Amino acid sequence: MTAIQDLYPDDFAHCYGCGRNNSEGHHLKSFVEGDEVVAHFTPSSYHIALPGFVYGGLLASLVDCHAMATAAAGPELAAGRKIGERQVERYVTAALRVDYLKPTPLGGELEVRGRVTEHTEKKAVVSITVSSSGIVTVRAEVVAVRIPKNMERPHG
Amino acid sequence: MTAIQDLYPDDFAHCYGCGRNNSEGHHLKSFVEGDEVVAHFTPSSYHIALPGFVYGGLLASLVDCHAMATAAAGPELAAGRKIGERQVERYVTAALRVDYLKPTPLGGELEVRGRVTEHTEKKAVVSITVSSSGIVTVRAEVVAVRIPKNMERPHG
Repeated sequence: MTAIQDLYPDDFAHCYGCGRNNSEGHHLKSFVEGDEVVAHFTPSSYHIALPGFVYGGLLASLVDCHAMATAAAGPELAAGRKIGERQVERYVTAALRVDYLKPTPLGGELEVRGRVTEHTEKKAVVSITVSSSGIVTVRAEVVAVRIPKNMERPHG
Repeated sequence: MTAIQDLYPDDFAHCYGCGRNNSEGHHLKSFVEGDEVVAHFTPSSYHIALPGFVYGGLLASLVDCHAMATAAAGPELAAGRKIGERQVERYVTAALRVDYLKPTPLGGELEVRGRVTEHTEKKAVVSITVSSSGIVTVRAEVVAVRIPKNMERPHG
């Protein structure tokens, strides 16, 4: 199976959270599973808010990158294309709404699930959950937009 | 001047984003300035979403930690206590609402500003902006809650 992030164009694959071209980053990988998109991630021992619990900023980061991958997979799934056949469109985050339902325990793999709830030509709304040992600890809604012109050539 | 995070109790000063007891983290430091709370942070070269622009997950992380510091400063300011005189209460994030108004350019110091818009015994609502060279690129609203009992003794 091909991760959605590995189908981002080379120029847009530097994201700290999920880019294959970022040597320092988290390298989150998101995969299509039916009509959902799923990723797994194990936080490091230092990714804590308080001892024993995962840092909310990391959780927001996982939500963010996974939502962009979910948005990118949307048109592919809608058109019945197999993921891996071609590059996907790159989306960026317009708005992030994260609800921390309960503390997320540190010490195991987290599962991140995404589903597109609305899709237009330029925008997708994505619903995300993060679970630890089968218990949903975070719910989020993310607005993704197709990469705007002013981000395409940052260096002029 | 004392950073608000340096007044968190020792047991709750391990946050990846702002804890003095986390050797790997960002060590964000937030300071009271009038009735606002201000922090400055310079992202690293690898903290990118796309080349030239700051990673949204990092921006959400700065928002998150700064909002908790702003919430913690709230009761001190309301009571007319000078910051630095005593420990502050530790808050954690219940909800994060981040709007990315425009891409945040990489390459300089960011300014994060927070203001408490609502405060009750157990909860604060904090309004945050992130600016680059005086231009606000991110606006956020964060709900902070006093540290819940189930996070106080994570290891039993």
